[in-house]
Amino acid sequence: MTSTDAAMEGRKAAELLEHTRNAVDPHIRAAVETLPGAMRRVAMYHFGWQNADGTPASGQAGKAIRPALVLAAARALGGDPETAMRAAVAVELAHNFTLLHDDVIDEDATRRHRPTAWAVFGVPDAVITGDAMLALALRLLADDPHPASPHASARLAACVIELCAGQQADCALEERGPEDVTLDECVAMAMAKTGALLGCACALGALYSGAGEREVRAMDGFGREAGLAFQLIDDLIGIWGDTDRTGKPAGADLTAHKKSLPVVAALTSGTPAADELAALYRGAMNTQEEVRTAADAIDRAGGRDWAQTSAADRMARAVHHLSVAVPGTEAAGDLLALAEFVTRRTH
Amino acid sequence: MTSTDAAMEGRKAAELLEHTRNAVDPHIRAAVETLPGAMRRVAMYHFGWQNADGTPASGQAGKAIRPALVLAAARALGGDPETAMRAAVAVELAHNFTLLHDDVIDEDATRRHRPTAWAVFGVPDAVITGDAMLALALRLLADDPHPASPHASARLAACVIELCAGQQADCALEERGPEDVTLDECVAMAMAKTGALLGCACALGALYSGAGEREVRAMDGFGREAGLAFQLIDDLIGIWGDTDRTGKPAGADLTAHKKSLPVVAALTSGTPAADELAALYRGAMNTQEEVRTAADAIDRAGGRDWAQTSAADRMARAVHHLSVAVPGTEAAGDLLALAEFVTRRTH
Repeated sequence: MTSTDAAMEGRKAAELLEHTRNAVDPHIRAAVETLPGAMRRVAMYHFGWQNADGTPASGQAGKAIRPALVLAAARALGGDPETAMRAAVAVELAHNFTLLHDDVIDEDATRRHRPTAWAVFGVPDAVITGDAMLALALRLLADDPHPASPHASARLAACVIELCAGQQADCALEERGPEDVTLDECVAMAMAKTGALLGCACALGALYSGAGEREVRAMDGFGREAGLAFQLIDDLIGIWGDTDRTGKPAGADLTAHKKSLPVVAALTSGTPAADELAALYRGAMNTQEEVRTAADAIDRAGGRDWAQTSAADRMARAVHHLSVAVPGTEAAGDLLALAEFVTRRTH
Repeated sequence: MTSTDAAMEGRKAAELLEHTRNAVDPHIRAAVETLPGAMRRVAMYHFGWQNADGTPASGQAGKAIRPALVLAAARALGGDPETAMRAAVAVELAHNFTLLHDDVIDEDATRRHRPTAWAVFGVPDAVITGDAMLALALRLLADDPHPASPHASARLAACVIELCAGQQADCALEERGPEDVTLDECVAMAMAKTGALLGCACALGALYSGAGEREVRAMDGFGREAGLAFQLIDDLIGIWGDTDRTGKPAGADLTAHKKSLPVVAALTSGTPAADELAALYRGAMNTQEEVRTAADAIDRAGGRDWAQTSAADRMARAVHHLSVAVPGTEAAGDLLALAEFVTRRTH
């Protein structure tokens, strides 16, 4: 792909995401507004529709990648995306359930440039609102008269179990020493924590288009591989920036001693830079100087190259799955544009 | 009802509960064993099937009231309880999801005579395992080929939202001063936190028997009212014992300054004993002497009588709902026995 093509794809994806956000948000908001009192307030804050005091806010609810995948997958397989709207809403609610709980568990105090829900409303309200949001996602799907509803419900519920397993594995990995983690288990963790829901989004779109098991599975594979590519890019951003577009300060993952994929690739590289990095990870890494040195060590140990190459490799696998699910390249265009977009965020 | 009748009912219910526990447990266990690694271990511990170190334990997983209600409701309406097994398992998993999270939120360190899951495995693992248990409950229902599955899934998901609202209201009430709580809002909270799931259990049994909307609604009403009676009795136990049968030391709710229903009835009674109790609630209440004085003040303020009378009143309402759902008294026998049993636990 030439850089002009990439720029066009990027514009296309950005438009698609904006269109999806506008189409899906009123439905998410209507669903959230059915939550009882205090949970509604926490949820409205979390989505950026209200300030902490309950006054209206402009809203900055993320990039809507998951609902965009649901709708684009349905469209690519000849379905009417409008009929898959509940699935798109359910997937986005499930995603936000994980954000609410992950922020509690990871003690993350900032998300999308604002204090996290637990930091504002306390841990109990954030946990309870996350619980209710998960139940709401599954209630919407179960209530849907669409014939795909039972399969989709079961698939989303199974995916949530996988997301939980991924988050659990992430916590367990963070507790272990820098030399006591393998790259394979980190990749498996990222696949469960991030790939699974992107795969589920695509699979639900396929189910709602009436596609057969082969297409549903291939769509799941496309989303999973694109999701891993997305995670690899996200991990690179967590080390090398950029704050403006993502709200993450450069080096944030290093200060937090996060064993992200490029870090573990570096730690397990068997290079002198790996030892250097391990030593830094055993220390505090609070100063800008230490963070810069660690980022440099990851680079010299090959962690940065590995992550970039892996992201490209995962994208190639995603494209292969997509060609199985949707033989015509034109019908697959939106999905491809979305996948390219999320894996080119640093450019 | 004579005391001989009551004793017979009690035996019948105890046998029914034991039978249900034996019938349902292998299915719950099979479901829990599908959970990935670390979450499975937390869940197996929580249900009492494993010790903290992963070695087998004898198991003491509660009284199986909710699954017994599902199966008895299905049977009462002419259904085959065997076909409602998944619903029974799903309801029990949903109940245990709430226990895992409530123990985290309430910082309760003991359940069923053992340290709670978060106390053993940490807050993150307990929260994540609870999440996965909820998803598992809804996955089992969604996956069920039974024609009631979509309705049942939607109903259980809606019930979980109500349970969350109840738990949220409970936390909010606990934060307020002893004079700043009304009895009505406490009753509403208990209905959401306890009544809703017992109602849902009965409604799911009805749905699985192929019953119509009227019966389903009446069954829901039966479970809700019986559930509130159950909560009132549980609150009495939380103040006046008994440790042997429930694992709760006498006065535990008082030491924890819990605004349980008899306490709030006493606090809002407008009696001199109410002021005395409010003063005690503003203090520490750590000594046995203080706890005894508080229990006595609740009694003198009429809180104990109110709770006992209310429990009887709720039971009468439950029986009325039951007569709407199941006109024949014989078919309703098991449900009645279960309701009588849980509201006579102190005897």
